[in-house]
Amino acid sequence: MMGEPILSDLVTQILIPVSAVIGIIFSLFQWFIVSRVKVSPEGQTSPSTTANNSKNGYNDSLIEEEEGLNDHNVVLKCAEIQNAISEGSTSFLFTMYQYVGIFMVAFAVLIFLFLGSVEGFSTKLQPCTFNKDKMCKSALANAAFSTVAFVLGAITSVISGFLGMKIATYANARTTLEARKGVGKAFITAFRSGAVMGFLLAANGLLVLYITINVFKLYYGDDWEGLFEAITGYGLGGSSMALFGRVGGGIYTKAADVGADLVGKIERNIPEDDPRNPAVIADNVGDNVGDIAGMGSDLFGSYAESSCAALVVASISSFGINNEFTAMCYPLLISSMGIIVCLITTLFATDFFEIKAVKEIEPALKYQLIISTALMTIGIAIVSWLALPPSFTIFNFGVQKIVKNWELFFCVAIGLWAGLVIGFVTEYYTSNAYSPVQDVADSCRTGAATNVIFGLALGYKSVIIPIFAIALSIFVSFNLAAMYGIAVAALGMLSTIATGLAIDAYGPISDNAGGIAEMAGMSHRVRERTDALDAAGNTTAAIGKGFAIGSAALVSLALFGAFVSRAAISTVDVLTPKVFIGLIVGAMLPYWFSAMTMKSVGSAALKMVEEVRRQFNTIPGIMEGTAKPDYATCVKISTDASIKEMIPPGALVMLTPLIVGTFFGVETLSGVLAGSLVSGVQIAISASNTGGAWDNAKKYIEAGASEHARTLGPKGSDPHKAAVIGDTIGDPLKDTSGPSLNILIKLMAVESLVFAPFFAKHGGLLFKMF
Amino acid sequence: MMGEPILSDLVTQILIPVSAVIGIIFSLFQWFIVSRVKVSPEGQTSPSTTANNSKNGYNDSLIEEEEGLNDHNVVLKCAEIQNAISEGSTSFLFTMYQYVGIFMVAFAVLIFLFLGSVEGFSTKLQPCTFNKDKMCKSALANAAFSTVAFVLGAITSVISGFLGMKIATYANARTTLEARKGVGKAFITAFRSGAVMGFLLAANGLLVLYITINVFKLYYGDDWEGLFEAITGYGLGGSSMALFGRVGGGIYTKAADVGADLVGKIERNIPEDDPRNPAVIADNVGDNVGDIAGMGSDLFGSYAESSCAALVVASISSFGINNEFTAMCYPLLISSMGIIVCLITTLFATDFFEIKAVKEIEPALKYQLIISTALMTIGIAIVSWLALPPSFTIFNFGVQKIVKNWELFFCVAIGLWAGLVIGFVTEYYTSNAYSPVQDVADSCRTGAATNVIFGLALGYKSVIIPIFAIALSIFVSFNLAAMYGIAVAALGMLSTIATGLAIDAYGPISDNAGGIAEMAGMSHRVRERTDALDAAGNTTAAIGKGFAIGSAALVSLALFGAFVSRAAISTVDVLTPKVFIGLIVGAMLPYWFSAMTMKSVGSAALKMVEEVRRQFNTIPGIMEGTAKPDYATCVKISTDASIKEMIPPGALVMLTPLIVGTFFGVETLSGVLAGSLVSGVQIAISASNTGGAWDNAKKYIEAGASEHARTLGPKGSDPHKAAVIGDTIGDPLKDTSGPSLNILIKLMAVESLVFAPFFAKHGGLLFKMF
Repeated sequence: MMGEPILSDLVTQILIPVSAVIGIIFSLFQWFIVSRVKVSPEGQTSPSTTANNSKNGYNDSLIEEEEGLNDHNVVLKCAEIQNAISEGSTSFLFTMYQYVGIFMVAFAVLIFLFLGSVEGFSTKLQPCTFNKDKMCKSALANAAFSTVAFVLGAITSVISGFLGMKIATYANARTTLEARKGVGKAFITAFRSGAVMGFLLAANGLLVLYITINVFKLYYGDDWEGLFEAITGYGLGGSSMALFGRVGGGIYTKAADVGADLVGKIERNIPEDDPRNPAVIADNVGDNVGDIAGMGSDLFGSYAESSCAALVVASISSFGINNEFTAMCYPLLISSMGIIVCLITTLFATDFFEIKAVKEIEPALKYQLIISTALMTIGIAIVSWLALPPSFTIFNFGVQKIVKNWELFFCVAIGLWAGLVIGFVTEYYTSNAYSPVQDVADSCRTGAATNVIFGLALGYKSVIIPIFAIALSIFVSFNLAAMYGIAVAALGMLSTIATGLAIDAYGPISDNAGGIAEMAGMSHRVRERTDALDAAGNTTAAIGKGFAIGSAALVSLALFGAFVSRAAISTVDVLTPKVFIGLIVGAMLPYWFSAMTMKSVGSAALKMVEEVRRQFNTIPGIMEGTAKPDYATCVKISTDASIKEMIPPGALVMLTPLIVGTFFGVETLSGVLAGSLVSGVQIAISASNTGGAWDNAKKYIEAGASEHARTLGPKGSDPHKAAVIGDTIGDPLKDTSGPSLNILIKLMAVESLVFAPFFAKHGGLLFKMF
Repeated sequence: MMGEPILSDLVTQILIPVSAVIGIIFSLFQWFIVSRVKVSPEGQTSPSTTANNSKNGYNDSLIEEEEGLNDHNVVLKCAEIQNAISEGSTSFLFTMYQYVGIFMVAFAVLIFLFLGSVEGFSTKLQPCTFNKDKMCKSALANAAFSTVAFVLGAITSVISGFLGMKIATYANARTTLEARKGVGKAFITAFRSGAVMGFLLAANGLLVLYITINVFKLYYGDDWEGLFEAITGYGLGGSSMALFGRVGGGIYTKAADVGADLVGKIERNIPEDDPRNPAVIADNVGDNVGDIAGMGSDLFGSYAESSCAALVVASISSFGINNEFTAMCYPLLISSMGIIVCLITTLFATDFFEIKAVKEIEPALKYQLIISTALMTIGIAIVSWLALPPSFTIFNFGVQKIVKNWELFFCVAIGLWAGLVIGFVTEYYTSNAYSPVQDVADSCRTGAATNVIFGLALGYKSVIIPIFAIALSIFVSFNLAAMYGIAVAALGMLSTIATGLAIDAYGPISDNAGGIAEMAGMSHRVRERTDALDAAGNTTAAIGKGFAIGSAALVSLALFGAFVSRAAISTVDVLTPKVFIGLIVGAMLPYWFSAMTMKSVGSAALKMVEEVRRQFNTIPGIMEGTAKPDYATCVKISTDASIKEMIPPGALVMLTPLIVGTFFGVETLSGVLAGSLVSGVQIAISASNTGGAWDNAKKYIEAGASEHARTLGPKGSDPHKAAVIGDTIGDPLKDTSGPSLNILIKLMAVESLVFAPFFAKHGGLLFKMF
């Protein structure tokens, strides 16, 4: 005990849930505003008057022409399309949840059996692992509570993804309708909808975690070692659902997207999202189940895991040993502060400033990142000053290291700022405002081959600075506060998650809005406006992926550190063959995983292509628009393919730690975790940036906004065709295999941590036998 | 001292040089046979009669029609083209050697200064590092001898590459001319020429190393620790030249190839190697400087490094401490045995059996691998029995481990057989006889995008089994004989290098032969025969790359182990931040490096495309074949680009160990080496297999040998165009960035080893300052 935190435990007990509730209320308020855009002809005139009169609306100087406001047919058509998309998404998610539910139950049983068997299902109290003088709860109790935490995490993750999807499908047609009034209005609708999702997820994740801790505490009392060990199940639950969400959703969306593009855009020369294309509904459903629901689950998982990693390390440091509740809750207080900071930041985009032109969209989103980071730095300082004792000790592989509160501030802050750096580097490499994407676009002059070569090289190159940023964060935060430092650095990167999710979700909502505009047959100008929103959305999506990957790297390392502590390994020496073979095999896993997911997208896309071709060839009048294509069959192809194809990669990730830990033991498993982390992070960054760059290179040529771009275009020119090929290749890279890799590295680490007591006790069967 | 080897030191002293000389004589004999094919009209009739009468020739049952044997014009044209290719290659290599020579001198000075400064340039004897009771030569002497060894290694590497190129350019036109007589004759000419290169390189590398050791021993006497530390300079010299050869040659060949294909095949619809294409000579020169000279240097480097790694570990084990010469020379005896085994193996292809049909080519090459591996297993057993004492001790990070001679046999053998497994897996994934490549070809139906997606997925997937094979070899050989075990496992994989190089060099020679046939306007049937040779060559090239990568992984690990021993680090703990940041940054380096090399190929290809287009547009009569294109300008573009572009990636590889070691110290450098090894090996394997698969998918469609293939073709169909795009993308992957990555991982390790005394003494400046 080296001093007391300024904040009393009671205030902490109040502050955390209050912040979470504020976040939820803010989110509902944004939803309310979005809901005033009516997607039914009756209410048609009300939103425009309301919006113009309300304080959140625009003044009359908005110099964009409104068009087609009174065309009731368009509104009806939008409503119809929105319903189709929403129904398709809901039905897919429910189908997926059925399968995933079976997995969840089976895995819950597995957790209980494995962890329960550590002490032979005995209910006797046992000496604590790290504080041998004290008695802790039985291994069986830990097994039971870990299982409950796992189920809670899984359910929260599923709800997060589902709510995100619901919000997005609620918002997309509204964004389209607002686009008739101008790009500014459309932007604000899409952005507000993103904010609904961001705040709901961040607040919900925090609240459930907080309540779980408090409920578990009723049983565990002052045995915080056991308590927070059980809580890690929450992270595992969140992340395993995210895996299936990302992989299943990713395969779904890209099978549909690639399939639709290959026949529609390349063979039949009809525009993207043309209603004559049978795969168009599946494509739009995909955006919602992959990019929205998948990403929501993913970031929720990262958030849950980094909180768990920090808590489990803190529980065996002085906070936990001395039962200092406020200091123990430091990670949760950081997240609470994050919600408040993001709330203020959101107002900058929605209320303090206005978007009046296309070129203001990207800066507005960028300012969101900068403002939230700057404000959060102050926020972290306040939390570190109030919630931490001036000096305390942190567990560091067997020894307790003395840390000062300002040192912990630096750990969180460096994570936060490293996130910003990664965000900006990602933007530089994927936005068509800068030379890298323009060079890629230029290389389309000589065909698809050079486009692909330049795009791959760009992705590889974009890895350099993020890796240095991550390495620096690791070095500084580890030196200041060991593995706890790394865990809070990850939390720092994720502390502005509400804003991050808002600008991230904004992308697919705009993408969908564009799709609806095209399908509803709205004017070219409306489509141009949604395209402008979407181009900015591609970049923000890439930024969001950058954050997700960077934080995943830090989180995995923190979890890895916690695992090593829990499994009682003192060193992970690369020079022992057990570790080295783990390292090299671990570094191979992301390739194996990517091979599976990419092949799945490819095969599913081929099936989709055949179906789309079949419909074009056999349904008379489909190309003339007189006959309606059979959307449902395409939806079914995507659904079936993604459900079937998500199992092998899912099994690879979920089974590897179990098999390696059980048969090869904790040293080899440590090697696997380190190897997959350092290798996976590179592939994930390069894949998502390569894909983003190709997409925006194509958009650069299509938009033709500069002299240079016009020499490459217009749509349908040879360079444009080459760019479309690059874009199609990039689809599975940026939306399926790339983002799933984050989850691979995090999930294997958190799973190892949860099963650590079992592996430490019974693991390494193969080496024990010989 | 636990027993004596059966072989006396005197016999060892004789056996090694004798085997090397036998290898050289055999190589010259093969050259003599090839030289009997005359590339001048006067001697035209002699080869066919000679060949038919000689024992090496074919009997009359060879049921292939001979054609155009008496067309003197064709022979003249072949001679002319051969001269152009040979001149272009020689001139490029000389230009490159000038630049590389400057680097070599500068780096030699650097080695001398860095190593000399370890003890402040003192000439006093010092206590040995590992055997403190003994006095060893001064650090200054080690610096001087290391520098000499470096220069010798560099020169041997350059000579190896140059001789390989000379042989290949000597053989290509001869292969073309023999193809008029049938595929069997062409095959044997190409294969014999490959054997010339293989045996010359293997024997030459062994001989120079052996002489160097004996000369150095005159000075060092019984200070073997210093002696073999200095000898590691040989590996560094060999590998650094290989780097420039691979990167420079790789950029050269692919800039020309991609440039020629993009305009010729895609825009102008003229066949590959059409003499109307201005880049055609540059393309053929590229095959010789990249695939032949680069690969020769590369494999020589691997061989030199694995020998050095084994020797340096042995020097601080009982062999070195007790000055047991025969046991010490175990690695060299393995290589000597390898030459004899490969010699016998070669006779199976050239004399014992005959190739009578196209479908026998691939099996014949495969049998070479199997036969050499089977015979070599016996050879290793003999060497292990004769040259090793029944029991001895091996240095294992500070302790001496007792090893039996049969255990060392298993280490070498597992390396050898792992090589075979890697070879077969590579063949499976890159030969169009199996389903993976056929699936890729099939995906061309839906265009280039799916082709690329499937190809990338194939490359990722092809990593799995080789990594398990490498991991198993590491695990077994480390457990049996620590780092020495890994070094001899690498040597085992490389022990059949003469055969490996022979079948590897066979590929580009056939490729060139086809080019010459096309340019000389020979009949379609001749071209078909050379194409069949070339398709088998693509697969063997991929197998060769598989060997190169697998052995590079083992060699690097062995060098890494030697470095760690030499730098007196006892553990490389992933959980220390110094090591972890090294690990993650090291894992990033292959991406950085690939980004540079791929972008270089892309940019150089763009320049080439512009020049080729310019010539097509401005030279009248070029398309009609009435005017000659300006080949020299295209050669100059490739030369300039590759010389300029090889510097940044070269600097990245050469400077990283120096900067990291000097400023961050040996722990971080250990992390960098481990990270780049485990990450680089994956990219290298996947890149080379993806490229090989695309190339053969294209050839599969072009050949149309099956019902399925015919539905995709013929040449010029949409699927074929998509396949050509994949092939073009694969070019820099499989011939520039992929194979260069082997050198990256080996070179950084051997450089760290050479500079280890300096880093251990003066390194880590940055951490010392703070």
